[in-house]
Amino acid sequence: MTLTGNQLIGSRESASSSDTFVARNLALGSDLDTVFREATEAEIDDAVNLATAAFDPFRRLLPETRADFLEAIAVELIALGDELLLRASAETAHPLTRCAAERDRVLAHTRQFAEWIREGSWVDARIDRGNPLRQPLPKPDVRSLLEPVGPVAVFGASNFPIAISVLGTDTISAFAAGCPVIVKAHPAHPGTCEIAARAIQRAAARTRMPEGVFSLIQGRTPVTGTRLVQHHGIAAAAFTGSLAGGRALFDTANSRPQPIPFYAEMGSINPVFLLPGALRARAEGIAQGFVGALTAGVGQFCTNPGLVLGLDGEEWKRFRSLAAEKVSVYDPATMLHAGIHAAYAAGVADRLERAGLDLLGQSTKPADPARGEAAAYLFATTHEGLLADPSLFEELFGPVSTLVSCRNPGDFVEVVGRLEGSLSATIHGTEEDLAEHAELIAVLRRKVGRLIFNGYPVGLEICHSIHHGGPFPATTHSHFTSIGTRAMHRFVRPVCYQDWPDGFLPMELQNANPRGILRLIDGERTREET
Amino acid sequence: MTLTGNQLIGSRESASSSDTFVARNLALGSDLDTVFREATEAEIDDAVNLATAAFDPFRRLLPETRADFLEAIAVELIALGDELLLRASAETAHPLTRCAAERDRVLAHTRQFAEWIREGSWVDARIDRGNPLRQPLPKPDVRSLLEPVGPVAVFGASNFPIAISVLGTDTISAFAAGCPVIVKAHPAHPGTCEIAARAIQRAAARTRMPEGVFSLIQGRTPVTGTRLVQHHGIAAAAFTGSLAGGRALFDTANSRPQPIPFYAEMGSINPVFLLPGALRARAEGIAQGFVGALTAGVGQFCTNPGLVLGLDGEEWKRFRSLAAEKVSVYDPATMLHAGIHAAYAAGVADRLERAGLDLLGQSTKPADPARGEAAAYLFATTHEGLLADPSLFEELFGPVSTLVSCRNPGDFVEVVGRLEGSLSATIHGTEEDLAEHAELIAVLRRKVGRLIFNGYPVGLEICHSIHHGGPFPATTHSHFTSIGTRAMHRFVRPVCYQDWPDGFLPMELQNANPRGILRLIDGERTREET
Repeated sequence: MTLTGNQLIGSRESASSSDTFVARNLALGSDLDTVFREATEAEIDDAVNLATAAFDPFRRLLPETRADFLEAIAVELIALGDELLLRASAETAHPLTRCAAERDRVLAHTRQFAEWIREGSWVDARIDRGNPLRQPLPKPDVRSLLEPVGPVAVFGASNFPIAISVLGTDTISAFAAGCPVIVKAHPAHPGTCEIAARAIQRAAARTRMPEGVFSLIQGRTPVTGTRLVQHHGIAAAAFTGSLAGGRALFDTANSRPQPIPFYAEMGSINPVFLLPGALRARAEGIAQGFVGALTAGVGQFCTNPGLVLGLDGEEWKRFRSLAAEKVSVYDPATMLHAGIHAAYAAGVADRLERAGLDLLGQSTKPADPARGEAAAYLFATTHEGLLADPSLFEELFGPVSTLVSCRNPGDFVEVVGRLEGSLSATIHGTEEDLAEHAELIAVLRRKVGRLIFNGYPVGLEICHSIHHGGPFPATTHSHFTSIGTRAMHRFVRPVCYQDWPDGFLPMELQNANPRGILRLIDGERTREET
Repeated sequence: MTLTGNQLIGSRESASSSDTFVARNLALGSDLDTVFREATEAEIDDAVNLATAAFDPFRRLLPETRADFLEAIAVELIALGDELLLRASAETAHPLTRCAAERDRVLAHTRQFAEWIREGSWVDARIDRGNPLRQPLPKPDVRSLLEPVGPVAVFGASNFPIAISVLGTDTISAFAAGCPVIVKAHPAHPGTCEIAARAIQRAAARTRMPEGVFSLIQGRTPVTGTRLVQHHGIAAAAFTGSLAGGRALFDTANSRPQPIPFYAEMGSINPVFLLPGALRARAEGIAQGFVGALTAGVGQFCTNPGLVLGLDGEEWKRFRSLAAEKVSVYDPATMLHAGIHAAYAAGVADRLERAGLDLLGQSTKPADPARGEAAAYLFATTHEGLLADPSLFEELFGPVSTLVSCRNPGDFVEVVGRLEGSLSATIHGTEEDLAEHAELIAVLRRKVGRLIFNGYPVGLEICHSIHHGGPFPATTHSHFTSIGTRAMHRFVRPVCYQDWPDGFLPMELQNANPRGILRLIDGERTREET
C-alpha cells in the first residue's frame, strides 16, 4: 500500500492543506516516508456532513448487516498482512510481537461486538403494556430501547497504535451502536492510522455501507481536534490520552452551544497494596510480576502501577530489594515519541532531586537519549513523605514507580483518602489479609474502576464484564467504559414510543419479538412475545 | 407540624443564618407563615460531610433494607395527611386534587423502586470466568456490577412541588442506588419541602438508616446551589428547572477541579404534528385533547405542547377554529410563582407584537395580574414565518402554543431540522399517515426522547420503559432519564473485580448467586450459579 497522507473522507481522498508533517522513527532518529496534511476546516466539515447524511441509512440497517461490516473489518485487517505491524513498529518503537498482539486484540473485540449485536438484547428493550380501561386514566402502551446518538468523533491513544486507535473499541463500539465515526489520527502514528483506515474503507465498500460511515482526518495541532469536537454535527466524542489534552477537549465539548458528552480516558496512578501474608508467601514472585508490569511497553500503559504501598517490616524490605534488583536488569528502551520521552526525562530528573524521596533502584544500563530511551526507576518514600508531596500522586508516564512504606493499615486508608480517581487498584494478599484490611478495600472501591487480587493491572481481558474507567481524572464520566461491551453505552440513548403502532416500531419492540431478544415486559424479563 | 424554616442536616436542625425569606400565596397576594433561612457555607459543608460519612454504611446495607427505607418513606408520606397537600397548594396555587395526584405519583414511584431493588437484577452483574490454563496467558476471572457513586445533590422542580421535588424520582432513585442525598429546597415551595423532608427524616429514623443519609438545605440565592454543586464531597447532581438555571449549574459542575455529572432536565418545545388522516377523522377530539394538554397545570408542564404543525387545508382550518374556541373558554389561573408569571406575561406581550405571528385565540375571561394569573393564548404562523423567527422555537413556560401551517411534508421535515432537542414529539395520524410521513418520523427520532402516537405529551406513566430525557437542551445528557427505573443509572458506575475471592465479592457477583438475580455469565443471561 502506498500511503498518501491525505484525509480519507468517506470513500474519497482530500489533500487541501499545504500544512504538513511527517512521522518519526524515534529509535533510528529519522523521519519516516509520507508527508501528512493537516485537515482543513472545510475538510472536517465535509467529513461531518457526510457522516450526518450516513447516520439514518446506517442506523436503519439490520444489526446483522452491521455485524457483517464489523466482521469484514476483521477480514480486511488480516488481509493487510505485516504492513500495518511494520509501520506501527516504526512509528511507535513497539516490537513487532507487541504490534501483532494489538492486532489480535482488535480481531477479538471486533468479533465480540459483532456477536453482541447479532444477539441483540443489549438494546435494553422495555415494554409496559397499556390498559385502556384503567381508572381514573387509561394506561398508555409505553416501550423504549437504546438507539444511536449520531456521528461520533474518536481520538485514539498514542500507546496502542492498533488496539486503541483507528480500530479500537471506540470506533468499533460506535459502529456496533449504529453511529458513523470520524477518527482524528494520532499525529505520532499517522501512517498506521491511514493503513488501518483503508481497511475500514474496504470493509465499508465490500459490505455496501452508506458513504460517510467512516472518515479519517489527520492533524498535529490542537485546533484540528478542537474544530472536530466543536462541529455541530458531532453527537459524542471518545478520547484516550493525557489529562491535559483530555481536559481541554472536555471543556471544549461542554462549552458548545449544545454540549455533547466527551468521554475521555486519561490514565491514572493505579496503586498497588502488598499485604503482609502475600509478601511472606511469595515476595520473589510479586517482585517479578510487579517489575514486569511496571516495564511492560516501556511503562507506557494507562494501568501502569505508579504507587506501591507496603507495611514496614522484614518482608517489605525484602520485596523492595528484590524489586530494585529486577529493575536494575531492565534494559532501557525507546519510548513512543519525543514528547513523551522529554516529559519522562524531566519527571525523573525532578524526582531525583526531591527531598524525602530516595532512589531505590534503576536500570544498570544507561538510557540513550538520542534514541528516546527510558530507563526504569524505583523511588522510595514513607507515608509521611508521600502525603507531604502531592506531585507523587500524579502519573508520570513511563517505567517509574514509588514504593511507600506505611506503619499500619490506617496509613493505607489515609493514603487512599488522598488518591484521585484511578482506573485500577491492586491488592496482593491472602484472604486473611483481605479480612484484616476491610476498611482499605471499602475506601478503594470508592476511588477506582477495577480491583485486582493477586494479579497486575496491565493487560485488560476482552470480555463483557471488564471495566476500563473510573472517577475523574481516570475518566471524565465514571459511568462509562472505553473497553468491553459496555463501551457501546457511550453512543446510545433511550428512545421511548408511546401507543406507537406495532408495525412502525423498531423490530426490537414489536409484539412478536422477531429478533428473539430478552426484553423487560411489565417488569418481567422474557424472550416471549407480548 | 410546626415548620421551623431551618436546615435539616441529618436528624439535626441548624439555624445559623440571619438571611431569611418567606413563601408567597400568589393567588391571595400574601406571605405564608414561617421564615426560612438561607443555608450558610458551613451548613452545606456539614450536610455534605455527614452524607460522605453515611455513604459507606448506607451502600453496604442489603438492598432489602434500602427497600424497607423507601417503603417507610411512603408510609410516612401517607401519615402526613393533608398538611403536605395544603401547604403545597398554598405555595404553588395547584388545586388540592392536583397535589393529591402528585402524592399518588410519589407513592407509586417509591414502591416501584423498592420492588426493583428487591428483585435486584438491575445491577447488571456480569461474570467472565477465568481459565488458568489458557495459552499464551492465563485468563483472569473478571466480574462487574453497578455500584453507587456517592452523595448526590438534588434540585427539585417548581412545577411539581411533591412529585418532582424532595420526594421525586431524583431522591428516591438515588436512595435506591445506595447514595445519600442532599436536597436544595425550591425557594418557591420551601414549606412543602420541609414537610416532605421530615417524612424522610422519620422514615430514616424508623428504619435506622445511617445519620446523614438525607439532608435538606434552604436557599433562594444562586450562590447556595452553586456551593452545593462545587462541594468536593458531592459525586453527582440532578436538577429539573429552567435552561438558564440548569446551564449555569452544569457549567459549574464541569469547571470543578474534579468535574461531576450534572443531570439537568430543562424542558422543551414538544412539537405536535397533526397529520391529515387524523384531522379528517377526529378534529374535534384532537382539539379538545390538545387544549386540555396545553392548559393542564396552567401550561406549566415540561412536556407542554408549544408548537403544533399541520398541513394547509380544510381540516387544518377547522382544527384551528376548534382549538381557538376551546382556548377561549379556558379561565385564567394563578401560576406557580411571581417570577414565572412575569416571564410569561412578558413573553406573551412580545408575541402579540411580533410580525408574522397572528393571535388565533385567547381566554375570553381576562387574567388578573394581581393574582399572578395566566390566560391561554394560541398564535398562528406559517412555515416561513416560523423559520424566520427563531424565538418561536424556544419554550415559553405557560399555556401558550403556536400553530404552524405547512404546505407539504417537506415543510415538516425542514422544521424538525431546525428544532433543538426535545423531551417529546407527538403525532396524530392514521397508520397510512405514518407510512406517508416516514421521513418526518426518521428525523424526529433524532431529536426527541419520547414519541407519542394519537395521545398527548403531558402526564408521564410511571413504568420501566418511560423515558423523560432527550438531546440538549431537553437535558444535559441524553443517555439518562429523570423519570422511570432507568433514572438510577445516573447515580451508579460499574466496578470490576478481577480474580477476587468469592467470599469478598459483592453478593450479586458471588458464585452461588445468593440474591437469585439475572446475570450475564460468559455472555449468557442466567439466574443459575456459576
